[in-house]
Amino acid sequence: MKQLEKITPRDVDFSQWYTDTVINAKLASYGPVKGTIIFRPYGYAIWELIQKYLDAKFKELEVQNVYFPLLIPQSLFQKEKDHIEGFSPEIATVTRVGDTPLPEPLFIRPTSEVLMANFFKNEVKSYRDLPLIFNQWTNVMRWEKTTRPFLRTSEFLWQEGHTVHSERKEASDLTLKILDTYTEFAQNALLLPVIPGKKTEKEKFAGADSTYTIESLMHDGQALQCGTSHYFADNFSKPYEIKFQNKEGKLEHAYSTSWGVSTRLIGAIIMTHSDDNGLVLPSMVSPVQVRLIQIKETDEVIKVTEDIKEALKNKYRVDIDKTDKSFGFKISEAEIKGIPLRIEIGPRDLENNQVTISRRDTREKIQVNVNEVTNIVDQMIKEYDANLYAKALKNREERTSRANSIEEYKNILAQNQGFVLVPFCGEIECEDDVKKQTSTNSRCIPFDQDNKTEKCFNCNKDTTLKVYFARAY
Amino acid sequence: MKQLEKITPRDVDFSQWYTDTVINAKLASYGPVKGTIIFRPYGYAIWELIQKYLDAKFKELEVQNVYFPLLIPQSLFQKEKDHIEGFSPEIATVTRVGDTPLPEPLFIRPTSEVLMANFFKNEVKSYRDLPLIFNQWTNVMRWEKTTRPFLRTSEFLWQEGHTVHSERKEASDLTLKILDTYTEFAQNALLLPVIPGKKTEKEKFAGADSTYTIESLMHDGQALQCGTSHYFADNFSKPYEIKFQNKEGKLEHAYSTSWGVSTRLIGAIIMTHSDDNGLVLPSMVSPVQVRLIQIKETDEVIKVTEDIKEALKNKYRVDIDKTDKSFGFKISEAEIKGIPLRIEIGPRDLENNQVTISRRDTREKIQVNVNEVTNIVDQMIKEYDANLYAKALKNREERTSRANSIEEYKNILAQNQGFVLVPFCGEIECEDDVKKQTSTNSRCIPFDQDNKTEKCFNCNKDTTLKVYFARAY
Ligand SMILES: [Zn+2]
Ligand SMILES: [Zn+2]
Repeated sequence: MKQLEKITPRDVDFSQWYTDTVINAKLASYGPVKGTIIFRPYGYAIWELIQKYLDAKFKELEVQNVYFPLLIPQSLFQKEKDHIEGFSPEIATVTRVGDTPLPEPLFIRPTSEVLMANFFKNEVKSYRDLPLIFNQWTNVMRWEKTTRPFLRTSEFLWQEGHTVHSERKEASDLTLKILDTYTEFAQNALLLPVIPGKKTEKEKFAGADSTYTIESLMHDGQALQCGTSHYFADNFSKPYEIKFQNKEGKLEHAYSTSWGVSTRLIGAIIMTHSDDNGLVLPSMVSPVQVRLIQIKETDEVIKVTEDIKEALKNKYRVDIDKTDKSFGFKISEAEIKGIPLRIEIGPRDLENNQVTISRRDTREKIQVNVNEVTNIVDQMIKEYDANLYAKALKNREERTSRANSIEEYKNILAQNQGFVLVPFCGEIECEDDVKKQTSTNSRCIPFDQDNKTEKCFNCNKDTTLKVYFARAY
Repeated sequence: MKQLEKITPRDVDFSQWYTDTVINAKLASYGPVKGTIIFRPYGYAIWELIQKYLDAKFKELEVQNVYFPLLIPQSLFQKEKDHIEGFSPEIATVTRVGDTPLPEPLFIRPTSEVLMANFFKNEVKSYRDLPLIFNQWTNVMRWEKTTRPFLRTSEFLWQEGHTVHSERKEASDLTLKILDTYTEFAQNALLLPVIPGKKTEKEKFAGADSTYTIESLMHDGQALQCGTSHYFADNFSKPYEIKFQNKEGKLEHAYSTSWGVSTRLIGAIIMTHSDDNGLVLPSMVSPVQVRLIQIKETDEVIKVTEDIKEALKNKYRVDIDKTDKSFGFKISEAEIKGIPLRIEIGPRDLENNQVTISRRDTREKIQVNVNEVTNIVDQMIKEYDANLYAKALKNREERTSRANSIEEYKNILAQNQGFVLVPFCGEIECEDDVKKQTSTNSRCIPFDQDNKTEKCFNCNKDTTLKVYFARAY
């Protein structure tokens, strides 16, 4: 095992800091194929916690888990035009098995709308068969030229929900209900102060009627899309012929949705909460929430350590560092891995029946009576999580601006990069032009709108829309 | 939704019965690419229960979950000769992305030994870094010409464990410890009376030093391999250069293992326990363990039904059939889906404060007092599971024979197909010859051996080995 290496300071080189943090915390390594990563145990454990939390929420919404195949025949993929145009340059294609060419190229799924649509077509006969509310936890592939662990990789892990409904409104309501679930999850579990909203025409998903999103701001002021929920109306039902007999006995095209979050969320957590000493993890997705470190292994220290573990283990993921590393190494290991609380147990403290608890975020240390450990851990974990959220929110607020012209917008990007709320006409051509000038896109149209008519910040057309723009990952 | 279709009787056409059961119980559908299936909610729920049970067992053995990439560069795959020879004709190969040819073909993993070996090579420096005990739950692909849901599909789901050790014995012990875990799981959770043993030279995994297996006998007398555990010695460490500094300070090649079970287990459950009325599921992997069906929805029936659900729900997966289907349809639906216990609640029974409980396996019905439901369910579930195991064991015992010559063996295959224990020399050429004559292979060398010298059933050489042969899926 390599010694821990120096992490580049975050304000010196954010991008290098990110990579150093991922590698030193042993979240991931690079795979042998460009664009792929290996989820190491610590990184995968975070994903398992995300899955566990979200999957339970989905089950409350009566979502049913399924598994659809990895490969999609080219001919099936091509039925929805926007969809194929959106994805085809990124699609990894299987053309042979062993030495034998295949009669038709097969696409590794970049997403599974078309497979689901094809299944729904055969399955759905009557309004009585609806809704179908499916989800799958899978790997998908969209080829990338550059690699950034968790943020930009050719293969990633995600959940993709796919639903089909007999009522237009039921489908669009579900899209928003899922967005609420994502928002609640991002805020409460990942401690990300996200902004929910709708994507512009330019930024919506290939094939969608409307796309909803939660957008988060990273420490460096760049935005990250944390989850999306798409309402398709009958855009997929028509080309894929998903028809059902409605209550009036007539054939009608069904209404569908899809929605997903991915392992990008791990990137969001890192870039929002972590610091120059390594990871800082929200307690709900921290594989170890409390780590016990013994300063010297006397009989009493060993006994008290075991007692504390016993007392905490039903409520927290707690472990004892039993490696033969030095005390100093153990401390920095716990810091680099972002473990929320560390309890140091040593003979000197124990003379006063005390141990030392330290918080990863503030690096504060306090000495507490052994009998009070459980209560104080409860309280400190709460404060720790509240502080992570508050800091992230403060950063976002300090980095949120208003601009009324493209010049103002460019100045803000240069000086205090972050979310910039602008009056925007919403047109694709105008957004293309903004992109050409600034290499940035709109992030979302927030739900909260003042409805005042102003001039589009770029083309000067009258508009009532206020839209967040930002540089984004 | 289609009406339930007739299931072909099991003794008329076992293969058609199997397909009818899978389709009617809505476990799976066929995917658009030949050789692929869609895991529908009910089928996937069984897999989730298998995962939950086994994953908890793995965690007791300090197994760490990881996720390694889907694609393997051709050049990396080719380092271990037996391994590439074993897999290459079945490997789906990605040769382009969009319209752009790739510089090197990429293989969709048929298994991940080489990716793991490549990672271990970079990770392992000293005996202090060992052991590494990894597992992943993934999809893999091995091209198949024929499709049988869960049994023979080009893509399947599985777990693959991969470990690396500093001591030869530690590695081979782990292989056996995992085999024990699989055996315990198959017997206690899936109620499959499996035979653990070792594979012959001919049947061992491509690249392994030794392969261990658990073998189960299906209702029709064909065997099914239910899980394997491979000890590699340093067969992968050498070509992939996994070296560590041992306690004496010298460089040594590490010792590795791998082991897996797959969605084939769902096939094993079906072919062992199910009958002419559809699925019969072991209670531990039954998505619904107790289904409540109301004969008539009077206020009292509704109240009692909810009370029973309330009383059972902390201990069992219990649901109420609230569809608008007829009572008869609900009964056959519960039967086809293999739900262990069904409780029918109707006004007439309630006059005597009774409900009717019926068991899926024996189809026995008993009337019980409402107050006794919980106790009787506890007892009936135990009896139900015990009966499933006993029936499977009885079938296996009735279908287990001894043969001392190839003629005897052929006669048994023709008359009472099953496990046939034979004295066997163990040599590859001799087993090739048996295969040529009978299209069957050895299944395993059971651990329990009498060590008496006899003549090989095929080539007449002296041998002390007794080996199970059978026709297999
Ligand atoms: Zn404009
Ligand atoms: Zn022989």
